[in-house]
Amino acid sequence: MFRFTVTQKDSCTQARLGHLTTTHGAVTTPAFMPVATQGTVKATTPRELREVGVEMLLANAYHLYLRPGVDLIEQAGGLQRFMGWDGPILTDSGGYQVFSLKDLCRVSEEGVRFRSHLDGSSHFLTPETVVRNQERLGVDIAMVLDECVPGLASYAEAARAAALTSRWAARALAAKTREDQALFAIVQGGVFPDLREQSARDLVALEFPGYAVGGLSVGEDAQVTYQLAAHTVQFLPHSHPRYLMGVGTPEQLVRYVALGFDLFDCVLPTRNARNGTLFTRAGKLNIRRAAYATDPRPVEDGCACYTCQHFSRAYLRHVAVAGEILSARLNTLHNLYFYQQLMRAMREALAADRFAAFARPFLAPHEAQRKEERVWQM
Amino acid sequence: MFRFTVTQKDSCTQARLGHLTTTHGAVTTPAFMPVATQGTVKATTPRELREVGVEMLLANAYHLYLRPGVDLIEQAGGLQRFMGWDGPILTDSGGYQVFSLKDLCRVSEEGVRFRSHLDGSSHFLTPETVVRNQERLGVDIAMVLDECVPGLASYAEAARAAALTSRWAARALAAKTREDQALFAIVQGGVFPDLREQSARDLVALEFPGYAVGGLSVGEDAQVTYQLAAHTVQFLPHSHPRYLMGVGTPEQLVRYVALGFDLFDCVLPTRNARNGTLFTRAGKLNIRRAAYATDPRPVEDGCACYTCQHFSRAYLRHVAVAGEILSARLNTLHNLYFYQQLMRAMREALAADRFAAFARPFLAPHEAQRKEERVWQM
Repeated sequence: MFRFTVTQKDSCTQARLGHLTTTHGAVTTPAFMPVATQGTVKATTPRELREVGVEMLLANAYHLYLRPGVDLIEQAGGLQRFMGWDGPILTDSGGYQVFSLKDLCRVSEEGVRFRSHLDGSSHFLTPETVVRNQERLGVDIAMVLDECVPGLASYAEAARAAALTSRWAARALAAKTREDQALFAIVQGGVFPDLREQSARDLVALEFPGYAVGGLSVGEDAQVTYQLAAHTVQFLPHSHPRYLMGVGTPEQLVRYVALGFDLFDCVLPTRNARNGTLFTRAGKLNIRRAAYATDPRPVEDGCACYTCQHFSRAYLRHVAVAGEILSARLNTLHNLYFYQQLMRAMREALAADRFAAFARPFLAPHEAQRKEERVWQM
Repeated sequence: MFRFTVTQKDSCTQARLGHLTTTHGAVTTPAFMPVATQGTVKATTPRELREVGVEMLLANAYHLYLRPGVDLIEQAGGLQRFMGWDGPILTDSGGYQVFSLKDLCRVSEEGVRFRSHLDGSSHFLTPETVVRNQERLGVDIAMVLDECVPGLASYAEAARAAALTSRWAARALAAKTREDQALFAIVQGGVFPDLREQSARDLVALEFPGYAVGGLSVGEDAQVTYQLAAHTVQFLPHSHPRYLMGVGTPEQLVRYVALGFDLFDCVLPTRNARNGTLFTRAGKLNIRRAAYATDPRPVEDGCACYTCQHFSRAYLRHVAVAGEILSARLNTLHNLYFYQQLMRAMREALAADRFAAFARPFLAPHEAQRKEERVWQM
């Protein structure tokens, strides 16, 4: 069922256009997956996700395991059927979630014991149970259980966690039973290039159908993130999909596509939307600002999203200040549309072999950091 | 612009089928108006309101006056344009809101001084300014400023308030300047039949294009409400639209249509939705109950709403318990669809001259109260 083909390579950068085939449909890469942590992309319906151009979602196996539970979703016919989304879904394993609740978890060679953030109940997950849970959820792409260390973790700690993650990856692969689900490995290694290289080599030797780079954007400097991702990606096979987890801003997406990454997920467009922060080609704007109180313009002139086609900044500010649910809805639609348009623009540039020109303004991180608000040409 | 025609009268009850023409379109009555207090029907978009069959909305001039302000909405091209709803809108004047904040308001012959519930700022509204504000909002039907007394108000207090409301109604009518907006009067008189009759006679003598019955369902017994409404409606002209404010449950809507009321508004379907209470023909259900955790059925078998077509009770319970915005959205869509279907069923029964058979189970308030959960034949 699972197949990935690089259909075009950029002549100047490492970027590539790809085609991912899964049990629940195809995805053209590079692609951005909105985050449906609890089985819903916050404030949206599946119909709206289709309308803004979303092809694949990310859900979180950890959250769904705790609530409503894997049994319940399996009985409902799998996650797609349960949540009313008929397209591809990738689930994060929960490694990141477990380890971000540091004081509530204890890791051993066998697996990880942790307390639920919902009710304090005790749970034990192993690489095998995590594979099994995701198979029962029936998603298209599952992620291995990994140990994610903080950005400031020591060399020794990062080395130990990366080695454990590799041993867990081998166990996860051995535990797999479903042919219609792909299992991706996750490169760890903290902020240490040699550990990242070792982790990538270990995992590639195990022959996964896809590879993610995890444990980045977890407290380290954005420059460090970029250098580590650039270093790591070269040890991942060109023929396989590469997924950079938890990234990022629009600028970062362009830079990481240029490095050869194919898949991305981030809460940024949806979380920002709920806080009133909207993305435009000219930069971000916070719709709650008094300056927009009487502004008759849409969020972005020429934007074809439902929000921009029907509502003024003045109205969006009103519903935001009034605390209306509609505010989260309309802002989310716009931001997701912006992200999907950006990915589409990158794919079109790749198809026309003009990606380098499109991406150039974003390739130098220093310059990009200096000029935070930049005009997009898409 | 404004025109109302009774197109069919029921042969057994006082119910009638009607056609209301306004500047922003036509409405077939009896009709239920969802409540868009702050310029949005909570958790819905205008597109969705159209999809569930809504033809007219109620918004609140008091809330919009305080935030975002009448100036701003007028500059935006009126309320319809501001909120992206191109159909008819009726605005409540704010009388009910002002007087429900008893300790914050002081009434005089001239008008009412009150403090904003948002920031404590002091405001003074008169019958004339309330007409002017609604004209500037550009809505299709405006309501006069009225004094609404509690259900337990004394005869003397109710008499004084009703008389003041009538004097204010005359001033409101005299203050009108827009031909494309209809102004409705509001019958008051507390729980006293003779005061209700006097109020209705006073207002009808002033020749308004439509009449509302207000000050009901404000703390008095539901049986008393019914008797007062039944008593009052006989003093309102058959040729004019009759609007029963703030009502009600599905059962109440049937009973009041049978009395000859044409227009209704209530927060019940939308507020209940956000609390997880869903309407079905077999009665209400609270989707948060554990009993629904694994229930694969839709809220209502055979229901054609987006929610029932795409989601199980199990999923709706999950998103409700998880506190997801989607819960409020999907529940609201279902409840509004249920209400619109009920109104449609009543209109169809009227057109086919079989309304009495449809309504019979709901006409006796005693029996209806005894059997709270009843099976609808629509």
